[in-house]
Amino acid sequence: MRAAAIPEASGAESAAQEEDLAVATVRKVVMEAEKTRPEHDLLGEGEVPAEALWGLHTKRAVANFPITGVPVGHYPELVRALALVKQAAARANHRLGYLPEAKARIIDEACTLVATDPLYAESFVVDAIQGGAGTSTNMNANEVIANVGLRLMGRAPGDYAALHPNDDVNMAQSTNDAYPTALRLAVIFATQPLVKALDDLAYAFKSKAVEFADVLKMGRTQLQDAVPMTLGQEFDGFHATIKEDVARLNEIVGLFREVNLGATAIGTGINADPRYAALAVEELSRLAGQPMVLASNLIEATSDLGAFVLFSGTLKRVAVKLSKICNDLRLLSSGPRTGIGEIRLPAVQAGSSIMPGKVNPVIPEVVNQVAYMVIGHDLTVTLCAEGGQLQLNAFEPTIGYCVLSSLRMLTAALDTLTKRCVEGIEADRERCRALVQGSIGLVTALAPTLGYEASSRIARRALKENRAVADLVLEEGLLTEAQLNGLLELEAMTHPTRRQKAGTVG
Amino acid sequence: MRAAAIPEASGAESAAQEEDLAVATVRKVVMEAEKTRPEHDLLGEGEVPAEALWGLHTKRAVANFPITGVPVGHYPELVRALALVKQAAARANHRLGYLPEAKARIIDEACTLVATDPLYAESFVVDAIQGGAGTSTNMNANEVIANVGLRLMGRAPGDYAALHPNDDVNMAQSTNDAYPTALRLAVIFATQPLVKALDDLAYAFKSKAVEFADVLKMGRTQLQDAVPMTLGQEFDGFHATIKEDVARLNEIVGLFREVNLGATAIGTGINADPRYAALAVEELSRLAGQPMVLASNLIEATSDLGAFVLFSGTLKRVAVKLSKICNDLRLLSSGPRTGIGEIRLPAVQAGSSIMPGKVNPVIPEVVNQVAYMVIGHDLTVTLCAEGGQLQLNAFEPTIGYCVLSSLRMLTAALDTLTKRCVEGIEADRERCRALVQGSIGLVTALAPTLGYEASSRIARRALKENRAVADLVLEEGLLTEAQLNGLLELEAMTHPTRRQKAGTVG
Amino acid sequence: MRAAAIPEASGAESAAQEEDLAVATVRKVVMEAEKTRPEHDLLGEGEVPAEALWGLHTKRAVANFPITGVPVGHYPELVRALALVKQAAARANHRLGYLPEAKARIIDEACTLVATDPLYAESFVVDAIQGGAGTSTNMNANEVIANVGLRLMGRAPGDYAALHPNDDVNMAQSTNDAYPTALRLAVIFATQPLVKALDDLAYAFKSKAVEFADVLKMGRTQLQDAVPMTLGQEFDGFHATIKEDVARLNEIVGLFREVNLGATAIGTGINADPRYAALAVEELSRLAGQPMVLASNLIEATSDLGAFVLFSGTLKRVAVKLSKICNDLRLLSSGPRTGIGEIRLPAVQAGSSIMPGKVNPVIPEVVNQVAYMVIGHDLTVTLCAEGGQLQLNAFEPTIGYCVLSSLRMLTAALDTLTKRCVEGIEADRERCRALVQGSIGLVTALAPTLGYEASSRIARRALKENRAVADLVLEEGLLTEAQLNGLLELEAMTHPTRRQKAGTVG
Amino acid sequence: MRAAAIPEASGAESAAQEEDLAVATVRKVVMEAEKTRPEHDLLGEGEVPAEALWGLHTKRAVANFPITGVPVGHYPELVRALALVKQAAARANHRLGYLPEAKARIIDEACTLVATDPLYAESFVVDAIQGGAGTSTNMNANEVIANVGLRLMGRAPGDYAALHPNDDVNMAQSTNDAYPTALRLAVIFATQPLVKALDDLAYAFKSKAVEFADVLKMGRTQLQDAVPMTLGQEFDGFHATIKEDVARLNEIVGLFREVNLGATAIGTGINADPRYAALAVEELSRLAGQPMVLASNLIEATSDLGAFVLFSGTLKRVAVKLSKICNDLRLLSSGPRTGIGEIRLPAVQAGSSIMPGKVNPVIPEVVNQVAYMVIGHDLTVTLCAEGGQLQLNAFEPTIGYCVLSSLRMLTAALDTLTKRCVEGIEADRERCRALVQGSIGLVTALAPTLGYEASSRIARRALKENRAVADLVLEEGLLTEAQLNGLLELEAMTHPTRRQKAGTVG
Repeated sequence: MRAAAIPEASGAESAAQEEDLAVATVRKVVMEAEKTRPEHDLLGEGEVPAEALWGLHTKRAVANFPITGVPVGHYPELVRALALVKQAAARANHRLGYLPEAKARIIDEACTLVATDPLYAESFVVDAIQGGAGTSTNMNANEVIANVGLRLMGRAPGDYAALHPNDDVNMAQSTNDAYPTALRLAVIFATQPLVKALDDLAYAFKSKAVEFADVLKMGRTQLQDAVPMTLGQEFDGFHATIKEDVARLNEIVGLFREVNLGATAIGTGINADPRYAALAVEELSRLAGQPMVLASNLIEATSDLGAFVLFSGTLKRVAVKLSKICNDLRLLSSGPRTGIGEIRLPAVQAGSSIMPGKVNPVIPEVVNQVAYMVIGHDLTVTLCAEGGQLQLNAFEPTIGYCVLSSLRMLTAALDTLTKRCVEGIEADRERCRALVQGSIGLVTALAPTLGYEASSRIARRALKENRAVADLVLEEGLLTEAQLNGLLELEAMTHPTRRQKAGTVG
Repeated sequence: MRAAAIPEASGAESAAQEEDLAVATVRKVVMEAEKTRPEHDLLGEGEVPAEALWGLHTKRAVANFPITGVPVGHYPELVRALALVKQAAARANHRLGYLPEAKARIIDEACTLVATDPLYAESFVVDAIQGGAGTSTNMNANEVIANVGLRLMGRAPGDYAALHPNDDVNMAQSTNDAYPTALRLAVIFATQPLVKALDDLAYAFKSKAVEFADVLKMGRTQLQDAVPMTLGQEFDGFHATIKEDVARLNEIVGLFREVNLGATAIGTGINADPRYAALAVEELSRLAGQPMVLASNLIEATSDLGAFVLFSGTLKRVAVKLSKICNDLRLLSSGPRTGIGEIRLPAVQAGSSIMPGKVNPVIPEVVNQVAYMVIGHDLTVTLCAEGGQLQLNAFEPTIGYCVLSSLRMLTAALDTLTKRCVEGIEADRERCRALVQGSIGLVTALAPTLGYEASSRIARRALKENRAVADLVLEEGLLTEAQLNGLLELEAMTHPTRRQKAGTVG
Repeated sequence: MRAAAIPEASGAESAAQEEDLAVATVRKVVMEAEKTRPEHDLLGEGEVPAEALWGLHTKRAVANFPITGVPVGHYPELVRALALVKQAAARANHRLGYLPEAKARIIDEACTLVATDPLYAESFVVDAIQGGAGTSTNMNANEVIANVGLRLMGRAPGDYAALHPNDDVNMAQSTNDAYPTALRLAVIFATQPLVKALDDLAYAFKSKAVEFADVLKMGRTQLQDAVPMTLGQEFDGFHATIKEDVARLNEIVGLFREVNLGATAIGTGINADPRYAALAVEELSRLAGQPMVLASNLIEATSDLGAFVLFSGTLKRVAVKLSKICNDLRLLSSGPRTGIGEIRLPAVQAGSSIMPGKVNPVIPEVVNQVAYMVIGHDLTVTLCAEGGQLQLNAFEPTIGYCVLSSLRMLTAALDTLTKRCVEGIEADRERCRALVQGSIGLVTALAPTLGYEASSRIARRALKENRAVADLVLEEGLLTEAQLNGLLELEAMTHPTRRQKAGTVG
Repeated sequence: MRAAAIPEASGAESAAQEEDLAVATVRKVVMEAEKTRPEHDLLGEGEVPAEALWGLHTKRAVANFPITGVPVGHYPELVRALALVKQAAARANHRLGYLPEAKARIIDEACTLVATDPLYAESFVVDAIQGGAGTSTNMNANEVIANVGLRLMGRAPGDYAALHPNDDVNMAQSTNDAYPTALRLAVIFATQPLVKALDDLAYAFKSKAVEFADVLKMGRTQLQDAVPMTLGQEFDGFHATIKEDVARLNEIVGLFREVNLGATAIGTGINADPRYAALAVEELSRLAGQPMVLASNLIEATSDLGAFVLFSGTLKRVAVKLSKICNDLRLLSSGPRTGIGEIRLPAVQAGSSIMPGKVNPVIPEVVNQVAYMVIGHDLTVTLCAEGGQLQLNAFEPTIGYCVLSSLRMLTAALDTLTKRCVEGIEADRERCRALVQGSIGLVTALAPTLGYEASSRIARRALKENRAVADLVLEEGLLTEAQLNGLLELEAMTHPTRRQKAGTVG
């Protein structure tokens, strides 16, 4: 998968900088393509490009899984989290006396580089969707960190006798604890911009709620005219519903703070010092700036993906609400002349290649589609989680792919929704008021006084005879004009009001 | 849909009781079938059976929605919750002076009857899946309560001048606040037995974990031999994972404590006294014995179904975990002679009509299927929630159907799983130990000492030559017999252990 | 699950009949509850009610699976299909000389009774969702048929020495071929009323298409005004889309004609005569009046459920289309005064307990919800199908439950949609025409003449200045009035028209 | 989203070529970044890079939809199909006399370039997930083709007075007919490699079926020992099930041959000549080398996405089957010492970072995950399809994204499954035979002779006493040794056999 040469994105950097970068890339590609180095693994010997930071395990995995074209490095939060896990493990191993000072220092430095310099993400080349429960991603990380370390030591990549991807970088770890821990941390990282984007959207709705506080309009249930409300109330509802999601997300993302680092292969902690798990998690908390805790049952924590199911379900909830809101925005802005037309969305592009002047609600539409993607991803997460067997779930990479993709898409969609749509929404105040005044739904305000049955009759008559409710009430002598005006005061209908006690009106 | 004449279920009641009940039913049916009474509504006149507790609105709804054959009365928690909501509303209206003492007392008494006597559920005859956002269920409740009240007053059903389903029983309510409030309360009620069933299953697993604490067995990742563990650890993992779900359910069901009673039609509280909402929710809390609170934004609360999406997602999480556990139980008991065969499930029925002596894991299998039903229901809930429009979601009845059905099925499936399967599981201790002793996975314990690469080579050789790992290590002189025995002590492999510092072994 | 005492449904039968039936039921229940007979199976002895047509296998299954309360007998098509499969097997076994004439005749007669008399469905008491791959349903059928046969022989139920559920009724069958074959046949049966209901709905739309052929209205894309069309064209689109589904359903249901009868346990045909499979399928075709064929690969056919996945996907397609149509009907009828309001749906019940006179689109709403149920069921079918392992899929009962339930709900929903909604739809001709005349979308018809850019400018100006397109074109002198009238003739816009060659107008 | 620098992939091209290409890219980037040209649209003026083949509409869309980072150009089949649709339209417009010879020739030539030279895909930069029902993709295509044409004319990009993206390239088209037509054609194109990959996999299974035709093994139902079969039969089942999918895919992809080209905006054909639709479809068939037909109801065809729902459902069926097969491969190869171990999958990479020598079934695992992605995509397709409103479905771009991504992932997964797994599978013949010989399931072959009940008793005794079935039968004197050997001949159990008539043995 290749990036669009997205025009807008290049604005910040000058053309000169781009040229330098591009030429450097060329040189690197060419140099790398020329030489190789030999490595070996369980299956035998193999060649990798001499300067590649990844090694033979990675190469085999790339060949085995040509699935999506989206490499692990596409998710910078995951790369960062992997590096921090390796770093925490190395620090713990050093403190426990298993990893010598010199190696520990180098691994530490290498991990810092990988965690902070985005360039290293390019060396995480394994496909995001892969077999093997994350082993390929973990080995890719081990190899990159070992080779970055070797460079720091002034040695050539592949000189694993000096610093070994497994024996040193992966010391006391298994894919089955390091990878799940990193993935959980990555989700914590990637949730932060989503929460920010939700807050921004909620604020945009609140601003509009204030702006539209006095715009009286008809409320609708089941697409049928109901009773009056203000447009401000409607937008304030959007604000409230988004803010609830922020609260839920912040709660449920907390489930990822519980990790199984130190569980090693299956949760029994084989090959790890009894003090290792506690120490490694402590180091990880410090490095990540996030409070992490060790799972109380490591066997369970190693095979269970319940936190992802619930978190993905929470993203689905966000998606469902966003989709409902965008459906509402599209309904309310339908028209311009043959729909509801109570609001106008900002025009952001021409809407049709055949119908001149047509402007469509393209921003809400794209948010709907992102919501549907997120719901589809939630199903994939569910299927993967159900597919765990015995001591492990082999499908965690796809869970990671789906959750991280959903987070990314939602964040992007929210940003475009806030900036390119909600902030520019205008109310058509005249149309709003005209619609409410002609409505039959006003009869509801008379029901406590006239009774449900008489009110129903008036409503049917109004509809059939195309008359106003008020006219009929007066014509039938059910109320005096003063009584009627009191009951039908529009603004009063938008909130609860004390009324006459039962039985005081005929 | 008609009940199976389930043989086991009738054990508690004597045949004589059944006869009485059945004869009474006959008499009732016959009497009701003979006479009718007229009622009228917005659409005109109609006849309903003279003694029916429901009325014309209900009759029309039954005719309009012949969908599943499952009536609302199939969910006793919902009937109870509806009655309590009506009761709370009546008390609030009385305290505010809108509902006269006499009517208030009758409605109160009628609601108590409907909420507590299961016979009244039979009068909630509207199909559980219905159009109209719950209006038919709400009107069914209004009519039943009015008619029960009329009977208490010594009047005939249908004499609505004395007590009116809308003007009196439904006073200050809308379907759009009364129904969602009742549904939330019903889910709170129905979650209690599920939590109990989960606790029971967790305890059964814990008991087995204790029983199997010393059964050494091979752990497996990706269905491939990994490293040793105990069967007790495996079952303790099941215990832990179920207990986590109990915690999550208890948290998330709390979202349903926030209700919109008093929101009336669209959340603006039209036709309700400003004090009504607070008062009604207070009364409801007291009547239900459940702490309920008024939603802070009633516009939002009236159209949003996010709590159902998240709760249903939590049920999905429960389902996913149960399915994974049942898959494991089926794998571990596979055989009896050509599978893994580490455990034996109790035989509860003959397994095959053609293969004599075959016993199948039918109880885990039915739990798997219930899990898949719950996951399917979660999707339906999602679709319904997304379909809300503007001030209301018209599809709440199907959300109620799915969530209440899932709760019921899960509870039943858990009970059968606990009692007919887990409690009777036996370990095949000899087979467990034999499998672990012959395994190549033991080599993992040597890796910290021999290094990853040498250990890999030994493992490959053992597999190819069909030899034991220990033999090869000794043959190659990599370790002394004493060293080897120390490293390969099986029980020690099931938990973390301190080991020699790096570099001390060749 | 208990049936609603549905008022409408009882119309056909007189109260006296009902009384007789009810009293008979009472007597039967009471008698059955009094006496028992002993039976035994693999697990030992057990008592069943003396007159029960089902036996001990069934009793155990009922106790094991108290899941939904919906018994297999709830699906008459499945009961009928099971009986026909047993009958076909018996005929084949007799023709091959394995089943003696006397037994064959009795089994044949018993099967005919079970297949044709709906009373026997009551004896299929096993829960529709069950473990064991259908063995319990199959054994339930074997036991019922054996006991019906024993009665025909003048013997007591349970006297299996004379006629044995397994050795005789189940001869040469396995659950694994008999049950899947019966389920496929049941789906074929249950699809026929769905196709009829779709045809009826399509015809109702076609009738309306003819009625509304001259109702000019605005077409809308993305809820924004597009270009004119007729309401007849819109309804004719509904007709066409439903008819396509009929075609697809008729094609894809054909996949169920391929059955694995004779495959026995795993597809190898163990214990069956080599001629049996062909003969049994031939007999089944004749008995069912449906062309059935033997699968070409019986191993594959025994474990694969691909036909259900595709058929369920086709039901999902039907559901999606119905949902879209119902969404459209709700949009087009939105109002009555503050929505689109181009059509009016018939009022079938009062819409609100608080808003007098409100009428809601309850019939389309219930169809939407049925569609969402069907989509949820499709997911459950998918999960079950994916869960097959090695030589069998144990989850076929739930697939059957979902597909048969979806068929039943869709058929019911379509009937109510056709009769209670579509047939009574009315057009608001004046509003349709008024909306189209005021629309800006008319400018599209000018674009081939004025060019896309000039037309866009006119459209923007019309919207901004709240003017008519035609006025602005004349004001700017872009066209003469005659030219304009030609281009803007409304009816002409609803179909392709030859126009002036490029370049002939300025 | 950026491509992994996939090591294997670069093998074919020399480093020198890469250098040239890279330097050229640099130059192009730099040049393009330097200059801009002005364009204008409905919303006003805007600058685009001077040499960009896309224009202002595209630029706005890129800014509006920064969702996935995957541009439309990522799907070469879609780019090709868009170009062919434009070409067909131009030819039809020319034949009808609306498009002058000179312009027609240029557009034709430009379309041929875009359809055939993969470089042009880089100019399709709009995000694959976008609002606006495909308008942005369509405008992107119009602008690219116009600018390619302008270059062919020796003119500068953006000189639209000479060749206009809308008035000329888009003549007589709407997004709403051109885009759906192109998407359907793209799916037809992309299905061809999937069918090829399925055929290859089926053949690999068939080859193994022949190789394993004499490997006797135990069949299993519900993971419990059933009756014997051959490993060849098992693999032949895989072959058969895949081949059925090929047949279904080939049938159902045919639904995409029906297109709505000429429907223009909403299906009424506004602004198109009455002869245009037929002519354009005829030209398209010829250009694409695919038989395409005009939909019979263009209103319906413009808003309905039923073909995508059914096709996606068919891909889901393929996914479900592949997942089941891969689950089986993982079960059958479980071990190496504590599982079933009947087959060995080829080792393609080291399986663990902690467990030396561990080899995991990573290829089947990645196929499982692709299957789950496809099932998730199917849900998204369903949601999008249901979201259509009135005369259009705005969510078709996401349907395209999901279907084309699923096709691509499935094809890749199948290739890796065939080449890296199935072709290298080996049978463990000794283990297969040993397992079957020790099995209790052999008793099934005795049931027709001994009866179901006696056979059940023998089976239970064998299990309880850990004895062989044959020993017990002889011990109890139920059969002579000769009779027993005849019945228990293993090979004979793998297919139907004539047996003694009923009643001839005790």
